[in-house]
Amino acid sequence: MKIALAQLNYHIGNFEGNLAQMQAAVTKAKSLKADIILFGELATCGYPPRDFLEFDDFIQKSYESVEILAKMTKNIAIVVGSPFRNPRVEGKDLYNSAFFLADGKIKQVQHKTLLPTYDIFDEYRYFEPASEWNVVEYKGKRIALSVCEDIWNVGNANPLYTICPVDEMMAQKPDFVLNLSASPFDAEHAAVRIHTLRANVERYHLPFFYCNHVGSQTDIIFDGGSIVMSPDGNVFDEMPYFETCLRVYDLEKVMQGGVSNEQPKPKIQLIHDALLSGIRDYFQKSGLKRAILGLSGGIDSAVVAVMAQRALGAGNVRVLLMPSQFSSDHSVNDARKLAQTLNIQYDVVAVQSVYDAYMKTLEPHFTATGFNITEENLQARIRGMLLMAMSNKFGNILLNTSNKSEMAVGYGTLYGDMCGGIAVIGDLYKTEVYELARYINKDSEIIPNNTITKPPSAELRPGQKDSDSLPDYDILDKVLFQYIEKRQSPKALIAAGFDAGLVARVLKMVNFNEFKREQTAPVLRVSSKAFGMGRRMPIVGKYLG
Amino acid sequence: MKIALAQLNYHIGNFEGNLAQMQAAVTKAKSLKADIILFGELATCGYPPRDFLEFDDFIQKSYESVEILAKMTKNIAIVVGSPFRNPRVEGKDLYNSAFFLADGKIKQVQHKTLLPTYDIFDEYRYFEPASEWNVVEYKGKRIALSVCEDIWNVGNANPLYTICPVDEMMAQKPDFVLNLSASPFDAEHAAVRIHTLRANVERYHLPFFYCNHVGSQTDIIFDGGSIVMSPDGNVFDEMPYFETCLRVYDLEKVMQGGVSNEQPKPKIQLIHDALLSGIRDYFQKSGLKRAILGLSGGIDSAVVAVMAQRALGAGNVRVLLMPSQFSSDHSVNDARKLAQTLNIQYDVVAVQSVYDAYMKTLEPHFTATGFNITEENLQARIRGMLLMAMSNKFGNILLNTSNKSEMAVGYGTLYGDMCGGIAVIGDLYKTEVYELARYINKDSEIIPNNTITKPPSAELRPGQKDSDSLPDYDILDKVLFQYIEKRQSPKALIAAGFDAGLVARVLKMVNFNEFKREQTAPVLRVSSKAFGMGRRMPIVGKYLG
Repeated sequence: MKIALAQLNYHIGNFEGNLAQMQAAVTKAKSLKADIILFGELATCGYPPRDFLEFDDFIQKSYESVEILAKMTKNIAIVVGSPFRNPRVEGKDLYNSAFFLADGKIKQVQHKTLLPTYDIFDEYRYFEPASEWNVVEYKGKRIALSVCEDIWNVGNANPLYTICPVDEMMAQKPDFVLNLSASPFDAEHAAVRIHTLRANVERYHLPFFYCNHVGSQTDIIFDGGSIVMSPDGNVFDEMPYFETCLRVYDLEKVMQGGVSNEQPKPKIQLIHDALLSGIRDYFQKSGLKRAILGLSGGIDSAVVAVMAQRALGAGNVRVLLMPSQFSSDHSVNDARKLAQTLNIQYDVVAVQSVYDAYMKTLEPHFTATGFNITEENLQARIRGMLLMAMSNKFGNILLNTSNKSEMAVGYGTLYGDMCGGIAVIGDLYKTEVYELARYINKDSEIIPNNTITKPPSAELRPGQKDSDSLPDYDILDKVLFQYIEKRQSPKALIAAGFDAGLVARVLKMVNFNEFKREQTAPVLRVSSKAFGMGRRMPIVGKYLG
Repeated sequence: MKIALAQLNYHIGNFEGNLAQMQAAVTKAKSLKADIILFGELATCGYPPRDFLEFDDFIQKSYESVEILAKMTKNIAIVVGSPFRNPRVEGKDLYNSAFFLADGKIKQVQHKTLLPTYDIFDEYRYFEPASEWNVVEYKGKRIALSVCEDIWNVGNANPLYTICPVDEMMAQKPDFVLNLSASPFDAEHAAVRIHTLRANVERYHLPFFYCNHVGSQTDIIFDGGSIVMSPDGNVFDEMPYFETCLRVYDLEKVMQGGVSNEQPKPKIQLIHDALLSGIRDYFQKSGLKRAILGLSGGIDSAVVAVMAQRALGAGNVRVLLMPSQFSSDHSVNDARKLAQTLNIQYDVVAVQSVYDAYMKTLEPHFTATGFNITEENLQARIRGMLLMAMSNKFGNILLNTSNKSEMAVGYGTLYGDMCGGIAVIGDLYKTEVYELARYINKDSEIIPNNTITKPPSAELRPGQKDSDSLPDYDILDKVLFQYIEKRQSPKALIAAGFDAGLVARVLKMVNFNEFKREQTAPVLRVSSKAFGMGRRMPIVGKYLG
C-alpha cells in the first residue's frame, strides 16, 4: 500500500484555492500510484477559522469541498479535515473531523477527541469532542484516523486530558495511524513533535503518518515538517520546513524501519525562515505586494528590513530614514548603508519641521512644562504618521519593528513606532534579535557591524541609551522569559535567584503596558508564548508584584 | 433563616480590596442577623481573571482570602466564589468553585459544571467541570450551590450542554438554590436573566437566590440586578443596576411569594448607565482621574463628552476643538456650546500649520499625486497626535469616540480618530448613538440640537458627508446587526430581503477592516456581540461575500 502526504499552504476561508491545491495533489498522488492521500486538519477551510465557524455558509462551503473531493476517489482514498455538523441537538454545533473518502463517497468520519483550549487555541469554543472511535477498513488494512491533538495524550500521560483516543482504537487492531494536523511553529516545536510521535510509536508499535499544514495565517505560522515514523521509532521521513510538499510512501518500507531522515533543527535558522514565511503569506494572502518601514540605524529595523527584502524582494520594499535633532550621524549612515546593500528604495525625510509645527501649535498649552516623554513620543509619532502617509499614498504596508522585550516593558510609543500591519520580530527578545542579526551576517556584512555593536538607543533625547531606562537586556530577557513563557510568579522568580527589586520593577512595567499591547499589530509567533491571542491578560487589573 | 446577598464591585487581582469589601459586608450582614451571606463568582480574584489563573501566586492569594473569610464565620455562613486547585493530575488545573464557609472553616465546596466558552468567555481554557453534586446541610436546611452558568441549562433545554447540574442535585431534595454569578450586562440581559430564573423556579418549585457582580472590568460591564425569586415565579426582589447593594431576605417570606419587585428595564437608560459604569471603573480601577477627547461638533464626540462629564465630573474632563480648513463654522460653534454647557475645559487648537508642515515634508515624495484618503487620514492623525501629546503632558487619558457602525465598516482612521484608551460608544450603532443623544436631551438641550439634526460628516474634505461613502445608517445598521450580532451569512441576509449588492458591499467593508479593529481600544460592551474578545475573526482570511 502506498500512502501520500500532502503538506499544503491553506488560506482561511479560501475554499476555491484550498480545493484547487488539494485537487492538484490528488491528481499527482494518483500518478504516483498512491492508494491513500492525506491532507491536514480543517484543510477545506484553513486553520484556525475562529468565529467563521459560526456562519452557516462557511460550514456549507466546507461540505461542498468534501463532496467535490469525494468524487475524485476513483483508485485513491482521500483523508481530509473539515468541520462536521453535529446532528444532535445537545452539545456544540460542530465536530472537527477527519473525513475518509473512497469509492465516490464519504466512507467514514472520525471526529477529534482532544480539543486544545489553551494558548492560541479555542477549539472547545466551537467543537464537541468525539465519543466514538472506529478504525476504517480499506484495501485490507485497518486504519486509525486521528486529528492533531488526538495523538498528544499518549496513554493519558498528558495531564490536560482524561481520554486517550488512540488507546480507544487499539482494541480494533489498526495497522497504522494517520494524523491530520495543524500544529503551529515555535522554535522548539519540531523537536517536541518528533518526541511525541516517538512516544506514540513506542506505545503502539505501529507506523504513524503525520501530515501538517505549512505557511502562515496572519500571526500563526505552520512549519510543515510532516513526519512518517516507523514502528522502530525511526523518523522514516520528515518533510521540509516552510515548503509545500507531496511525497508517497510505501507502507512496507515504513514498516521495516531502520532508516532515519530527521532534519537538523537550528533554532535561529528556523526562526529566520518562519519570519520569511510569516511576511510572505501575510502579504500574499491579503493580496498585497509592497512594504514600507522606518530605518533608524538600529538593530530592530535593520533586521526587519532584511527579512522584508528576502520575503518580498528588493523591489517591493521601501524605507524611510527619518532623522531628528537627536539622531546621531552614524545612525543615518548605518541605515543608508543597509538600504544600499539591500538595494531597496530609501528616502531621507527629516522630522524637524513637523516637530516644530507641533511644538508651536502646542506651545500655548504647554506653558511652564519642560521636555519630557511627551516630546519623545511626539518624534516617534511623527515618524509613524509619515510612514502611514506614504503607506496610504502608495499602498505600501507598514511593517512594525518592535521586539518582544520592548513590547513587554512598554518601551515603545503607541501610535508611533508601535504602528504597522504586522509585527515581524515582536516575538523575539532583544537578545534574540541580535542572534538573528548575526545569523543574517554569517557569510558577509549585510547589516552594518556598527548597528550590531553600538549600544541600543531610541535617540529621542540627547545621548539617550536603552540602558538608562531598562535593565541590561541579558538580565531583562531572562526575567521576561520566565514570566511570559513560563508563567513564573514573582515569588518563584525571586526564589530562582533574581533580585527582588529587579523582578518588581520589570513585572510592573510588563503589567502596566497591557493597554499598549492590546492596540498593537498581530505578532508573528515563533515562541511558545507570544503576545496576542495566546496570552490573555486583563487590562485594568491589579497585578501581582 | 435569613439570607444576605452582597452585590459588590470587584477588581481583578485586587485581593486586598475585594477581601476588604467582603469583610465589611459580612460585618454588616451579621448586624442584620443574616444566617448566610452570598457573594459572586470568583469574588476573591474578580472576573474574568483570564491568564492570571495560570500564575501560582494568583491562586494562592485567592485561597488566602477564602481562609481569612472562613475565620469570620462565627454566627454566619459565607458562600464565596474562588478558584479551586484540582487535586488530581488529570484534567485542567483548576475548578471554578463555590466555597461554603462555616464554623471557622471550609465546610464544603461545589465546583461549577457548565463552563461558558463562547463570546467573551474562555472558561474551558482554565477549568475542569464538576462531576459531583452535593447539597450543603446547614442549620436544618439543605442548600444547593450553583455557579453562574449552572442554572442556564434548565432540564437540559440549552443545546450547548449535556448536563443539568440542578437536576443532578434534586435527588438530595434541596430547600433552596444559591447561585454565584458574574453575568455581564447587555441591553437585553436583565430580562433574559429573569426569564431563565423563572424557568428554573417553574421546574424546581424552589426559591432561588442569584447574586451578581456589579461594576466594570475594562470592557466587560456587570450590571448587578441580583435576584431573589419565590417558588411562585415572582421576582421577590431585584437589586439595583450599576450600584453595590447588600440586602437580607427572610427565607419564609421568599417562600410565601406573592410579591413582585421587578424593575423596569428601559434600554437606552440602561445603556447610558452601563457606559457611565464602564468609564468610571476604567479610570478608578486604573488609578486614573482625568480624561481628554476631541470635540468635533459631531454626534459621537458630543455623546462621549457628556458621558465622560457625568462619569468623572466636569473638572476631570478636558476637550480639544481642532478645526481644519474643511470644518464648518457650525461644527466649532456646536462643540464650543456643548463644552460650555458641560462646564468642561476646552481649547481650540488649529491643525492647519502642522498639516502644512507634513505636506511640505512629504511634497518631494508626493509628486504628481492628488488629494485623496492620505490627506484625509493625515488630518485625523494630527488630531490624534495632538490629543496624545496633551494626554502625555498632563495625564489625561484619551477617550475613543468611534461608534460601532464606523468601526464595523472601517470608516475611521487608524492612529487618528481610532486612538484612545477605551472606546466609550464602540458598541453602539450610529442609530443608537442618536437614541442616546435624544435620551441625554430628554429634559433639556444639553447636546446642541444642530449636532443631532445635521447630516453626519467627517469634515475631512470639502462638503463631505458620511452618506457619500456609506449606505444610510438606518439600512447599514440593520445589515450590520444581522451580520455581527446574529451571525447571518450573506445568503441568509439576501434571503431576508436585503439587496444583494448592498450586502456584498457592507460585508466586504466589515471584513476588510478586521485589521483596524485588531488595533483599537477595548470597547465597552453593551450588546450581545461587541468587537473585541467576544468576536474572533481571522485578519488575513478570504471572507464570505
